[in-house]
Amino acid sequence: MDGKSNLSFILNKPKDVSFGNRPVPKLSSPHEVLVAISWTGICGSDVHYWQHGGIGSFILKEPMVLGHESAGVIAQVGEAVTSLKVGDRVAVEPGYPCRHCEHCLRGKYNLCVQMVFAATPPVHGTLTGFYAAPEDFCYKLPDNVSLQEGALIEPTAVGVHIVRQAGVQPGQSVVVMGAGPVGLLCAAVAKAYGASTVVSVDIVPGKLEFAKNFASTHTYLSQRVSAEENAENIKKTCGLPDGADVVIDASGAEPSIQASIHTLKVGGTYVQGGMGKSDITFPIMAFASKEAAAYGSFRYNHGDYKLALELVASGKIDVKKLISGQVPFDKAEEAFQKVLEGQVIKMLIAGPNEKI
Amino acid sequence: MDGKSNLSFILNKPKDVSFGNRPVPKLSSPHEVLVAISWTGICGSDVHYWQHGGIGSFILKEPMVLGHESAGVIAQVGEAVTSLKVGDRVAVEPGYPCRHCEHCLRGKYNLCVQMVFAATPPVHGTLTGFYAAPEDFCYKLPDNVSLQEGALIEPTAVGVHIVRQAGVQPGQSVVVMGAGPVGLLCAAVAKAYGASTVVSVDIVPGKLEFAKNFASTHTYLSQRVSAEENAENIKKTCGLPDGADVVIDASGAEPSIQASIHTLKVGGTYVQGGMGKSDITFPIMAFASKEAAAYGSFRYNHGDYKLALELVASGKIDVKKLISGQVPFDKAEEAFQKVLEGQVIKMLIAGPNEKI
Amino acid sequence: MDGKSNLSFILNKPKDVSFGNRPVPKLSSPHEVLVAISWTGICGSDVHYWQHGGIGSFILKEPMVLGHESAGVIAQVGEAVTSLKVGDRVAVEPGYPCRHCEHCLRGKYNLCVQMVFAATPPVHGTLTGFYAAPEDFCYKLPDNVSLQEGALIEPTAVGVHIVRQAGVQPGQSVVVMGAGPVGLLCAAVAKAYGASTVVSVDIVPGKLEFAKNFASTHTYLSQRVSAEENAENIKKTCGLPDGADVVIDASGAEPSIQASIHTLKVGGTYVQGGMGKSDITFPIMAFASKEAAAYGSFRYNHGDYKLALELVASGKIDVKKLISGQVPFDKAEEAFQKVLEGQVIKMLIAGPNEKI
Amino acid sequence: MDGKSNLSFILNKPKDVSFGNRPVPKLSSPHEVLVAISWTGICGSDVHYWQHGGIGSFILKEPMVLGHESAGVIAQVGEAVTSLKVGDRVAVEPGYPCRHCEHCLRGKYNLCVQMVFAATPPVHGTLTGFYAAPEDFCYKLPDNVSLQEGALIEPTAVGVHIVRQAGVQPGQSVVVMGAGPVGLLCAAVAKAYGASTVVSVDIVPGKLEFAKNFASTHTYLSQRVSAEENAENIKKTCGLPDGADVVIDASGAEPSIQASIHTLKVGGTYVQGGMGKSDITFPIMAFASKEAAAYGSFRYNHGDYKLALELVASGKIDVKKLISGQVPFDKAEEAFQKVLEGQVIKMLIAGPNEKI
Repeated sequence: MDGKSNLSFILNKPKDVSFGNRPVPKLSSPHEVLVAISWTGICGSDVHYWQHGGIGSFILKEPMVLGHESAGVIAQVGEAVTSLKVGDRVAVEPGYPCRHCEHCLRGKYNLCVQMVFAATPPVHGTLTGFYAAPEDFCYKLPDNVSLQEGALIEPTAVGVHIVRQAGVQPGQSVVVMGAGPVGLLCAAVAKAYGASTVVSVDIVPGKLEFAKNFASTHTYLSQRVSAEENAENIKKTCGLPDGADVVIDASGAEPSIQASIHTLKVGGTYVQGGMGKSDITFPIMAFASKEAAAYGSFRYNHGDYKLALELVASGKIDVKKLISGQVPFDKAEEAFQKVLEGQVIKMLIAGPNEKI
Repeated sequence: MDGKSNLSFILNKPKDVSFGNRPVPKLSSPHEVLVAISWTGICGSDVHYWQHGGIGSFILKEPMVLGHESAGVIAQVGEAVTSLKVGDRVAVEPGYPCRHCEHCLRGKYNLCVQMVFAATPPVHGTLTGFYAAPEDFCYKLPDNVSLQEGALIEPTAVGVHIVRQAGVQPGQSVVVMGAGPVGLLCAAVAKAYGASTVVSVDIVPGKLEFAKNFASTHTYLSQRVSAEENAENIKKTCGLPDGADVVIDASGAEPSIQASIHTLKVGGTYVQGGMGKSDITFPIMAFASKEAAAYGSFRYNHGDYKLALELVASGKIDVKKLISGQVPFDKAEEAFQKVLEGQVIKMLIAGPNEKI
Repeated sequence: MDGKSNLSFILNKPKDVSFGNRPVPKLSSPHEVLVAISWTGICGSDVHYWQHGGIGSFILKEPMVLGHESAGVIAQVGEAVTSLKVGDRVAVEPGYPCRHCEHCLRGKYNLCVQMVFAATPPVHGTLTGFYAAPEDFCYKLPDNVSLQEGALIEPTAVGVHIVRQAGVQPGQSVVVMGAGPVGLLCAAVAKAYGASTVVSVDIVPGKLEFAKNFASTHTYLSQRVSAEENAENIKKTCGLPDGADVVIDASGAEPSIQASIHTLKVGGTYVQGGMGKSDITFPIMAFASKEAAAYGSFRYNHGDYKLALELVASGKIDVKKLISGQVPFDKAEEAFQKVLEGQVIKMLIAGPNEKI
Repeated sequence: MDGKSNLSFILNKPKDVSFGNRPVPKLSSPHEVLVAISWTGICGSDVHYWQHGGIGSFILKEPMVLGHESAGVIAQVGEAVTSLKVGDRVAVEPGYPCRHCEHCLRGKYNLCVQMVFAATPPVHGTLTGFYAAPEDFCYKLPDNVSLQEGALIEPTAVGVHIVRQAGVQPGQSVVVMGAGPVGLLCAAVAKAYGASTVVSVDIVPGKLEFAKNFASTHTYLSQRVSAEENAENIKKTCGLPDGADVVIDASGAEPSIQASIHTLKVGGTYVQGGMGKSDITFPIMAFASKEAAAYGSFRYNHGDYKLALELVASGKIDVKKLISGQVPFDKAEEAFQKVLEGQVIKMLIAGPNEKI
């Protein structure tokens, strides 16, 4: 890594970021590889840490490198690595489970309590020059997938996991609350799963316009009315008289969650994908008397990255449309600022060694 | 049916009941049988209709016969009936689906929107002399199951359906909120499903004492503390440091539902079995970040009655313990009064032609 | 139905068919409709009855009208019918379950032992002028689906059911043994379910050429080598080094079934869709040590017709490509002859009142 | 380990065993523990290697220590070990997956192709003084479970895995072909899962007598008749007119497998648990037309050992009944000889440092 920069974009405390050169990480196991980061997307959680210094029980106590939506090029491989070689272009899954606990052993590694997840305090993220990762968490990009698209595999995998939790089947109707990056990707993944009606719901008309051009068959602009009324409107205007087979909340907003339950068909399925207030008013009896199912969705699990990559590589999801802009590494804070202002969908930041 | 009484216990309007002789029903299809009702248990919903005249969208508009937890003796069979004969003792499943809608055809007849359910306005119930039912909704009692036990198959089937919704597996831990009849039966069914830890939670010490003698391995007396604290206490005192695999709410009470979610293990399963307030404050982020599953549970479905009967017949559940008292038909209102006062578990009312 | 012909195409005994005018059926329930049959496809089972007079335990004892893949126009509706009206164009699901047995009540009506299935002795089929069916087994065709396509919903539903049994998920690899009508439709349905690799295998090169233009991403021409060798060749030539996630047999041929098991990935899923010899040599230890899953697939169930129609209406499956020819009713035997000779994929026969 | 023997029971080549002192293993990872082996049961596969030198593709090429059904006492712990301490009594799960491949990550570690499994060439087994194992594959025995019972957790886990593959539900009927140790344990586990009818089938009357006293509600002595006839007899004599919900083959014998399929109910589930001939004559059309499900079962997976231990600790399965005899280490070959002769169920061999 001689002569290469390991410049990193560091959150020192809320609203205080800086650039600093940190040592290039050493491989801690023969199964690891070192990835030269090419592109990193900005996630809402990155912005939230930047503004507030914590999410839930994860509180910033020491400076931490931000970023976890990345793709890059293999710069070094551990001696036990067999599936990757130096120069391979990869999307990086940014969370590493313990592989020994009950959740890991039963195939739910996303629930591992010892998970080491990039840019989740105190773990450093991927807005850096070089990043070490286990071989089996790096996914080789096919030739027709660019490194920029590779950085978008992460949010696509979030959408895949949510849609898998929902168990979407061909021919079903799926309503997605929220048309931010994850909501848009949920809609696109649901369509790739064969959903015949995909409704995006939001409070911003421009986002719905984008959704319509991205993957949704219908859109609905939320009104300042009761959750029941919004739900009735969705059913009426989207051709779902009995309600939706599946409703996904990708907003985290209390009124959306309430409308979600009222939009569900009898026997339907709900997934909580968005993050928001800890406690909300919830129509529990509407949920129960419909004998509905509800599932949380937390990050991603085995197979999600692989499918996300396959959906992008096959052209079923065109993630390039989501890229609002891309900036060099030294403009990272400006890119964060744009995401904070909400006028963009997805901003990409080049790695410090990437020429753009 | 010559000389037999078809005396019925009729709810005229809230808090106004009377006895009236109604015509013996005629079989409306060759697949039906006529059941001479022997015993009927009183359900919370019966008491609720009696006191309030409605539940949710089901509102009493005309006088209605109460009761739906019944067993009796076949008095007449339709010409297409092959599995039952006059004199057979049966437990009666009291709701009849349309058999043609999407829910019926996909095996979820409990969700049929055209369901005709006893003692749900405007459908008459089973506190009457003779009751007509489809052959396939009457379950022959084996010799070792009494007609009184037969009347308790209905709430047992409610418990079976809830536990099935939960997908309880041998070796799991199950916490049941509420130690009324349904909560007790959920605990007993969970144990029959092989749960190794079965915790009953209630606010009444006497109910917990009963629960301990019935099926529960542990009990917890809810305190006037936060939901999180009650949840922590349950985990600590019941040997569940990581939380429970399954939590069932059989109370419908807001604090219980909140504590339920906090009691769940990461990746655990919650079932809403109890009825209560339409909207409650719900810890949605705790639910989502545990990637938990939640299911409603509505009445029962194919196989539930059969398994409930099998659990009683095999001795795995001793429903006789739940019977607090049994009264002749003309004391029906007094039995209702006792249930209303909450000092009993399950009261049975003899059919008008039953000698006790 | 005044002045309308109810001419029927009748199998008298093996290899002996005739045309005869039979009485127009009367509706036997208020839930039934009368369908004027427009088009009927010929199935392999029709040809088999024609040639051999029986399949398994279903033996022709009296003359029987052939045909069960039909679409037509509603000519009359029973008084309880609400979703259809005279003039509606429908695809007809040709088997009617009892709605009362355990299999019907648990949502597996295709397993109903009292099933009344068209053109399965002794039940008359749909190669006739008018056919009575329950309302809920007639599926209204959207405007963009022709009646000819409507007749092909039946084999498409067979494919849907098989793929559902297989639980195909997006991104999976699916190998289909046999490229006859059902095999081709399995491939197309698997693709609509998101399979990324769909391999058709057959012994006839022309069928594979057709498959490639229809839905398959890869084809393999079976060789006269061992099942293991054919399996290895499939893996090698179709980019499946670890084997296929799903293998579907739509051939019924012993060598295909054997090769199927050897083609399966560890942990893979097999579905037996084709009919053939009762007993075959089966690699049971290869199946067991892979901890594979195998499922039978029998006709179709609730939701299969609906999804088949949706896949055709949405353009995801172009069933028109499968139509090799269409003949007037009086040429029915010639159409059967062509199917017997194996030089066509799907022949359609017009209804006796249909002008073509 | 000063002064402790690491004497091992070594298979040199088919039918040639010897005792040899091998070096005490060193922990190869901080997550490992060293177990002083107390008791080891003899499995059919041990005997098969002894007699034939190989099973399938696993061929003995160099001398190998036999044995894999063991319990012992922790003698040393790696520095990262937190859940176990020296002196703890444990059952040892004897196969260690790679934790990195697709199967490991999706929670199917039993299908890991890099699995290192005791006494499967070239991996040494547990008939030795000290054995190193990962912490998470050692299960602490509660006080009421003896070390002899601990050695029987392994075959119990095999039974748990088979019954889990079958998805046995309370109230179901389960037929188990074969009443050897695994068949007996499948019957016992099925009963613990709530099966109401559990039928053991064998060709040896004495084994059936044992089965009846162990867990089975019914037994059937296989006759020298066709598979269909044996199946009909089982249905008739065991009160299963429609067939069994679940059939498990724990014999590997061709006639048993054939009878299994014919014994299945329409829509039933079959599991291949036994090992036998690679290819057999299989009633594929009976399987398909019943729309049955079939699953292989390979060793065990996460949760199986834990549940097996829980079933033993709770008294639901009394594995002590299966112990036909226990011998000191130097009599190991005699114990093997007894198993070969088939006159015993389960023989236990004491560890070389165990006083008996």
